[in-house]
Amino acid sequence: MVFMRFRPQLIASSLSRAPKPSRTLAPQPLAAAAARRRSLTATLSFSSSSSMAGAAPSEEALRRALAERQTAVDAQADAVRSLKASGAKEGVDAAVEALKALKIEAGAAARRLQAAVGSGGGAAREEMRQTVVNTLERKLFYIPSFKIYRGVAGLYDYGPPGCAVKSNVLAFWRQHFVLEENMLEVDCPCVTPEVVLKASGHVEKFTDLMVKDEKTGTCYRADHLLKDFCKDKLEKDLTLSPETAAEFKRVLAVLDDLSPEELGAKIKEYGIVAPDTKNPLSAPYPFNLMFQTSIGPTGLSVGYMRPETAQGIFVNFKDLYYYNGQKLPFAAAQIGQAFRNEISPRQGLLRVREFTLAEIEHFVDPEDKSHPKFVDVADLEFLMFPRELQLSGESAKLTKLAEAVSKGTVNNETLGYFIGRVYLFLTRLGIDKSRLRFRQHLPNEMAHYAADCWDAEIECSYGWIECVGIADRSAYDLKAHSKLVIVPSKKDLGLAFKGNQKMVVEALEAMSEKEAMDMKAALESKGETNFQVCTLGKDVVITKKMVSIGMEKKLEHQRVFTPSVVEPSFGLGRIIYCLFEHSFYTRPSKSEEEQLNVFRFPPIVAPIKCTVFPLVKNQEFDDAAKVLAKELTAAGISHIIDTTGISIGRRYARTDEIGVPFAVTVDSATEVTIRERDSKQQVRVGIDEVASVVKELTEGQSTWTDISFKYPSHIGPQGDQE
Amino acid sequence: MVFMRFRPQLIASSLSRAPKPSRTLAPQPLAAAAARRRSLTATLSFSSSSSMAGAAPSEEALRRALAERQTAVDAQADAVRSLKASGAKEGVDAAVEALKALKIEAGAAARRLQAAVGSGGGAAREEMRQTVVNTLERKLFYIPSFKIYRGVAGLYDYGPPGCAVKSNVLAFWRQHFVLEENMLEVDCPCVTPEVVLKASGHVEKFTDLMVKDEKTGTCYRADHLLKDFCKDKLEKDLTLSPETAAEFKRVLAVLDDLSPEELGAKIKEYGIVAPDTKNPLSAPYPFNLMFQTSIGPTGLSVGYMRPETAQGIFVNFKDLYYYNGQKLPFAAAQIGQAFRNEISPRQGLLRVREFTLAEIEHFVDPEDKSHPKFVDVADLEFLMFPRELQLSGESAKLTKLAEAVSKGTVNNETLGYFIGRVYLFLTRLGIDKSRLRFRQHLPNEMAHYAADCWDAEIECSYGWIECVGIADRSAYDLKAHSKLVIVPSKKDLGLAFKGNQKMVVEALEAMSEKEAMDMKAALESKGETNFQVCTLGKDVVITKKMVSIGMEKKLEHQRVFTPSVVEPSFGLGRIIYCLFEHSFYTRPSKSEEEQLNVFRFPPIVAPIKCTVFPLVKNQEFDDAAKVLAKELTAAGISHIIDTTGISIGRRYARTDEIGVPFAVTVDSATEVTIRERDSKQQVRVGIDEVASVVKELTEGQSTWTDISFKYPSHIGPQGDQE
Repeated sequence: MVFMRFRPQLIASSLSRAPKPSRTLAPQPLAAAAARRRSLTATLSFSSSSSMAGAAPSEEALRRALAERQTAVDAQADAVRSLKASGAKEGVDAAVEALKALKIEAGAAARRLQAAVGSGGGAAREEMRQTVVNTLERKLFYIPSFKIYRGVAGLYDYGPPGCAVKSNVLAFWRQHFVLEENMLEVDCPCVTPEVVLKASGHVEKFTDLMVKDEKTGTCYRADHLLKDFCKDKLEKDLTLSPETAAEFKRVLAVLDDLSPEELGAKIKEYGIVAPDTKNPLSAPYPFNLMFQTSIGPTGLSVGYMRPETAQGIFVNFKDLYYYNGQKLPFAAAQIGQAFRNEISPRQGLLRVREFTLAEIEHFVDPEDKSHPKFVDVADLEFLMFPRELQLSGESAKLTKLAEAVSKGTVNNETLGYFIGRVYLFLTRLGIDKSRLRFRQHLPNEMAHYAADCWDAEIECSYGWIECVGIADRSAYDLKAHSKLVIVPSKKDLGLAFKGNQKMVVEALEAMSEKEAMDMKAALESKGETNFQVCTLGKDVVITKKMVSIGMEKKLEHQRVFTPSVVEPSFGLGRIIYCLFEHSFYTRPSKSEEEQLNVFRFPPIVAPIKCTVFPLVKNQEFDDAAKVLAKELTAAGISHIIDTTGISIGRRYARTDEIGVPFAVTVDSATEVTIRERDSKQQVRVGIDEVASVVKELTEGQSTWTDISFKYPSHIGPQGDQE
Repeated sequence: MVFMRFRPQLIASSLSRAPKPSRTLAPQPLAAAAARRRSLTATLSFSSSSSMAGAAPSEEALRRALAERQTAVDAQADAVRSLKASGAKEGVDAAVEALKALKIEAGAAARRLQAAVGSGGGAAREEMRQTVVNTLERKLFYIPSFKIYRGVAGLYDYGPPGCAVKSNVLAFWRQHFVLEENMLEVDCPCVTPEVVLKASGHVEKFTDLMVKDEKTGTCYRADHLLKDFCKDKLEKDLTLSPETAAEFKRVLAVLDDLSPEELGAKIKEYGIVAPDTKNPLSAPYPFNLMFQTSIGPTGLSVGYMRPETAQGIFVNFKDLYYYNGQKLPFAAAQIGQAFRNEISPRQGLLRVREFTLAEIEHFVDPEDKSHPKFVDVADLEFLMFPRELQLSGESAKLTKLAEAVSKGTVNNETLGYFIGRVYLFLTRLGIDKSRLRFRQHLPNEMAHYAADCWDAEIECSYGWIECVGIADRSAYDLKAHSKLVIVPSKKDLGLAFKGNQKMVVEALEAMSEKEAMDMKAALESKGETNFQVCTLGKDVVITKKMVSIGMEKKLEHQRVFTPSVVEPSFGLGRIIYCLFEHSFYTRPSKSEEEQLNVFRFPPIVAPIKCTVFPLVKNQEFDDAAKVLAKELTAAGISHIIDTTGISIGRRYARTDEIGVPFAVTVDSATEVTIRERDSKQQVRVGIDEVASVVKELTEGQSTWTDISFKYPSHIGPQGDQE
């Protein structure tokens, strides 16, 4: 029943590096907690990310300095004008010179401010992003879905290399989490009946505020329009007074806390109109983000496409607990599609309407959150951004995990263990350590029942993006499902229904709270009642002695508690997109006229592990290449053969561009060269050994350094032509 | 644009082994082809499966024999009555004896008929199924979804062992098809805009016929009610005249060909009522099986959850063809969820509302369907059930694939190659060869454009189930998408739109036929027109010289053809369910009082590869077990440690029941025993070698026989206690 929780669709979506207001994580909280959760993060990460850039003067100081210079310019201009008007010759030249000097100073102050508010750096980032995205789309890493039918915003296909990267990331996720921790993996449907999502609060509250163009009906997210307006002003209008700038920043900071009325009032106050048509806008109103559908043919049974995968685990908790021998702690995991009908998706893979989530629910005794394997991650050191640093306007700091837990910055060992494991997962995929931080939720960002929450945020051209949420959710989710106690009397039911007993028992146990309470009332007044058993396809008569119904109470012979849940939740599309950006670089070609694109994917992530090139078109080399390909297939190594006659350098460039780490050039029937993508080093290896060498390299038993020590290096005519 | 195609939701759902009317594959064909496709399969597989049981007399002969015996009994009874009435003493005893003899004969005939129509064997199969299903549900292989909320028919969760089996099957599918054939894998969204499914025919025709209980509104599939009625009569009413029996069989045979009116007339004629209430039923009417939803906030854009994954490949054909260097043949593949809102799902995992499909589209030159790797599968021999055998009432025959292709039984090498590869895939998973057949579609079962279709059918307790469809679909699907030719003039658009050129070009190319034709008309009459570019969020003006629009015509400098498509399409849930049944067996426990359940999954499929048991509770053994577990994890081998104090035999039984192939008993810190599940043989292996031995076994480099030769065998106190 996770509802007020990590929402991978939501990101810190500033296009410029600083200022960078980040939207808080769950945009549609349950009413009460809502206000508390929607917090000051925006302002805080704003100032913090400015401060990360060094000891530069604050934006406010710059703005004030510019305003002062401008006032000085104006004053001097007045003085010059007065002098000229008075007809005085004396002093005019000096005054004009002074005015010029002041203007130069003001210009410099404007440039400093411009640089600080970041629209300059933004352009460079935008350009970098365009280069990456063009390469990704050209090489079919991803493609806007249904492109030949004009596409649908927020839906993307992964083409061959993207699909391979995704499946490698998922396989590594399974190895790193499910296998390593003996987690119980489950696989539940996307189609979900309304009753489940009512209990979780999604039906009522999983909404964003929307405004409509009053003439065309086009819809916009209200907070996005207000945010864009404020950001635009802050970045581009250098004449803003520090006071007005502060006001816009305050609005950005509280954006997620605004009621529909407050949001509407601000939109009116600032005169914000529909961006495409300049038409007036409607008042903001909530729009539920779930895709609704109807289950079965009657049209009476409402269903939704799940907005997250976690409820599949919570509703199965009892079975899983039993499966685990009724022992805690244990973890369940699920990988699957989730769906959110975003109002106006943008930012490519970062905000989409359908995406893959990988979620873990680690159930733990609330009175013992120690973790036996915490020692394995205790010495890790990485950027942490706890509350205190955010509140004091400082930036994230390199912190040892052991220290963070022992000082209580991180609430407990189990939470700390998962933070460490997530760090290892992301960096082993190839995420740049210096652009990865763990940011703690501020108290008012968290649901009231949560003990502590940390997000793994990855910096990319869109700013710091929340990619994994790691929450100690206390016992809220399980409690939401376990208030009712229905105890069928198997003896009496067995006597009455014989072979059908099991189905009657299951149907009784599956009653909703309302159904159970209705039955309880009927049994108390009449002694018996009709009861529909779907699996039998008929009604049966239930008597009073067949079932006892009540609300949860102490069970005998066991300590009563609801386990706490620690929930790491991974937005895979976001991780993959950030990985694309972090892995991308260009290098000059041999001709130096063009830049060659390279993705430096680690072998486990690389969509294809190795290419095979016969050096020249020649039967002997082609045959050797085919034999080699067969061996690679048998070893389970994805590869492509490129037998086009083009130059070897071009062929290298072509596979560098999809991040293939190793290229094998076949120039004899017995020995070949293996070339590593990033160093461009080559070694000479016997053709029989190639498959096992590449397998070692891609499975991580050997590094390139190991291999380059073991085998003779090679600089031959088939060296890089770039 | 596959619409009239393999439909994994549909199965030959007879509960009895013979007679076995099988519903044809796609229940909602496009109008014209519909009648042709809905065929006589039912009758044919009926007679053929009777004949599969050996040279037994036909059911009709048995029915006629019983009727004759009954007539003889009746006649003799009359004779006896007359004799008695006439007061004659003589001959009465003899006549009574003769009557008795005739009654015995009639009884035997009734039993022979009963056995032939199969309701006897059906009970045994039903019992076997219950045992398997109970084990599967108890061990959480699968669970009815949302059980604590009473569940939703046709939705199932895979619990931990089921989820692991599924992910192993998928991994093997990727290795066997995608990697081995260098296929281009893609991953497209489930949410699909209406325009795509209109083009494919799904919006109009993807329907089943439904009837409603006129009082309660409960919905039923019309053909199911009629089928159940006829089957029930045929199986249980032994007094049916051969003529009436033939009539019911005819109805079963043409069930899928009946129009709503004909179906309604039959329901009326036979007096069929709602099974749960005995209320009258409405006339049959079509119900579209797609889950409908709405994309985006306006409510104006209709979408559906995809009913199959193939269109994702077809709409990307051009990009994939280009990615493949514009060379044929090549194959694209997709694994993903598909959704069908079944009217009244039944038969567990075999007919569900959400399921995983794995589909391949192999694009090939229509004039050259040879396959270079056909030789690799040519010698395979397995049960094939070509048209001729079905039409002549014979049964499937062991056939060599090479022969089937050379004789033209299988249309071409490429189709033959995939049939062979599917055979290898299924049998390596553990599907029983003797319960797997490849059945060819009859001419009137296929879409008019298809060249040849074969289904891999697996026999389980529900009958022969279509699990993989392998169709040579000719060029229909691609043509459905490629009639329109839009050629933007990049030069003119570049001049007009500069940086936005790309987005304008894409939007122009993405126009629907209607939009393009409208634009063509506008450009011809007015010379220019407004055009909305969604990605720019605004309208632009397009002039005549910026784009040329026409229907497909001959391109210069290249041969013009649309590739043919060979499409193997796998219903994974069905394959997995059949695998569960084929892998299940019981064996007596040591006490002989109970049967132990075992799944004989091959190691690649087994949900957990190995268990580790410390022989007794003891620090030394526990520590050794922990070290071993770490090594197994590092080797990527899923395992569980069972440190409960219960007897080793019980612990073996517990893991046999989820199909764990190897159990390691730790009884020293240096050496352990490894026990194989099915043979119960044990070998003695050094503890350091265990991880590599188990890895070899599970990855297929060694067999148990290899290992049992290499290591000393062991019969110790920790031998099986069963």
